[in-house]
Amino acid sequence: MTEFTLDERLERDGIPIAPIGLCQMRLMNDRRWPWLILIPQRADVSEVFELTPLDQAMLTFETNMVAAALKKATGAEKINIGALGNIVRQLHVHVIARREGDLNWPGPVWGFGKAEPWPEGAHQAFAARILENF
Amino acid sequence: MTEFTLDERLERDGIPIAPIGLCQMRLMNDRRWPWLILIPQRADVSEVFELTPLDQAMLTFETNMVAAALKKATGAEKINIGALGNIVRQLHVHVIARREGDLNWPGPVWGFGKAEPWPEGAHQAFAARILENF
Repeated sequence: MTEFTLDERLERDGIPIAPIGLCQMRLMNDRRWPWLILIPQRADVSEVFELTPLDQAMLTFETNMVAAALKKATGAEKINIGALGNIVRQLHVHVIARREGDLNWPGPVWGFGKAEPWPEGAHQAFAARILENF
Repeated sequence: MTEFTLDERLERDGIPIAPIGLCQMRLMNDRRWPWLILIPQRADVSEVFELTPLDQAMLTFETNMVAAALKKATGAEKINIGALGNIVRQLHVHVIARREGDLNWPGPVWGFGKAEPWPEGAHQAFAARILENF
């Protein structure tokens, strides 16, 4: 059995916030949108349907908990949830807060422009706000 | 209690395939990618976390069943799953088959170019292939 190790690109592009059960929760290091990523800590899985039924239920529960917290913390108009994985094959779920008029609204965030890293200090405050809304 | 009625834009952009439990399954009328849409038949819901816990579990089950069938039917490299709703607020989940080199690969399909309607006859054959793989 292979052990779970975080994909290098996911490691590089995000900032760890907290383990929340099945998943690691990370913040995308891109302040253009409030953008969280959940990575189920299971090896060799790239599609949600490859998880066991219990893990699928856990992932749904955790995704929706995070989505609700992100909505409360940001007052977002709409939460975008996506599992794409065309570039990084390790299963990961995007949870993004969107509002009318934000960058590329109403289009998707993926592949748009260039990431703007969070300034030091700001991302910790944002992460704390998310966790308060769990 | 409001009754569920399908959003007009979802009605216009897709072709009905089958009811599959909680959701209606439709085919996007865009042959550029094999692209299915699931719409939970619940009124006034725009975020997955607004569904009851049971409906959330049903939606997960149905999404993953459809994603697995789409992968088998198409031999896709990667399935993209997304619940965005920036334009159409009625909750709907996209399930899309992607392959290296398809249009806008590895970027997302949403908002890219212009839909190419399925020719008459072809979408029925495609829908039958999906249902065979359930």
